Amino acid sequence: MKVFHTSFCLGSEERTEVSDITKVVRRAIQQFPVNVGIALINTLHTTCALFINEFQGSLIEDLKAMAERIVPERGGYRHDDPRYSDCERGNAHAHLRAALLGRSIAVGINDGELTLGRFQSIIFAEFDGPRRREISVQVIGE
Amino acid sequence: MKVFHTSFCLGSEERTEVSDITKVVRRAIQQFPVNVGIALINTLHTTCALFINEFQGSLIEDLKAMAERIVPERGGYRHDDPRYSDCERGNAHAHLRAALLGRSIAVGINDGELTLGRFQSIIFAEFDGPRRREISVQVIGE
Amino acid sequence: MKVFHTSFCLGSEERTEVSDITKVVRRAIQQFPVNVGIALINTLHTTCALFINEFQGSLIEDLKAMAERIVPERGGYRHDDPRYSDCERGNAHAHLRAALLGRSIAVGINDGELTLGRFQSIIFAEFDGPRRREISVQVIGE
Repeated sequence: MKVFHTSFCLGSEERTEVSDITKVVRRAIQQFPVNVGIALINTLHTTCALFINEFQGSLIEDLKAMAERIVPERGGYRHDDPRYSDCERGNAHAHLRAALLGRSIAVGINDGELTLGRFQSIIFAEFDGPRRREISVQVIGE
Repeated sequence: MKVFHTSFCLGSEERTEVSDITKVVRRAIQQFPVNVGIALINTLHTTCALFINEFQGSLIEDLKAMAERIVPERGGYRHDDPRYSDCERGNAHAHLRAALLGRSIAVGINDGELTLGRFQSIIFAEFDGPRRREISVQVIGE
Repeated sequence: MKVFHTSFCLGSEERTEVSDITKVVRRAIQQFPVNVGIALINTLHTTCALFINEFQGSLIEDLKAMAERIVPERGGYRHDDPRYSDCERGNAHAHLRAALLGRSIAVGINDGELTLGRFQSIIFAEFDGPRRREISVQVIGE
């Protein structure tokens, strides 16, 4: 049994951008000699989210619409108000969406592969782009 | 230290159905010779949720009402519109609820038992039933 | 490779109270001889949340406001109604907020330290205080 660690970077071009990163995570994990174990994938940031769901175009539009409905980009947040905060990005909505959707997933590894269901994709949601982001991958297994 | 893996299936009879699966998860884990470790329990699907909370009848009604209030079943989603999607189940609400509530839990194992608090139950929420679902259980420990 | 476990208690003075517990978690983990591994931090309760985000004063105000907007404290919940429940605390909102924000985080350990990003803090949100809470810390590593 051993522990392995790597990280990779993601870029984005839009303010809000949702991507399927299943392949890049699989590739990162396949470099480790692990047949069975657990993979932990974390963003190292606080204004983007990482979760598992189906990556289907119209569903991703629905997801963005839900995020805007529950946590609107312009929601009159204190964090975006120079009287209360020195953050100049106006990104409170991105922090709050990340808190709701999560920033971390843990997935089993069996037969050398991530144990994902047929429709499950690893989804990265940038809410404060364009930005370069670091994703950390930790694996325990043998 | 070793890795163990199993899975089990759950059925449902209603469109939306919330169940306490603590016992079946405990039983799945007790078959492994593990005294201390970590258990990772994941659904392999994208329209149901897995999380920990108190399983109390009226609270579960409140949870379903919250889900319907935040993400209504008929929300005019693109994923449910044949012009934008070939999904014929009309289940965008189930995907979005799953994204908010999560599909995975990780719990410590100590003295051969899941380390859960007195009121903590492992809760499975079906949002696109009736359906048969697979739950994956991965354990690392010794 | 070994498994370690400890727990610590947190108190609160307000009904709703959000704290940065990064330091106390770091201290709990540093007592273990682990250079690389995974740390799993769970609350053992169902009316408080544990998650990672930036701990900045005005953002925490925004987080509390979002919680109250999405899941109001007085939301006419069945769990708070003596006709349907024998819970006398009126804390359905706290259960539902915990279900949305999560009660568990998993973080990699590398070079003997939790692998957190520059702005990432481990945040504990009490929604049913004042209360004494137990946080469980499980580490696998070497």
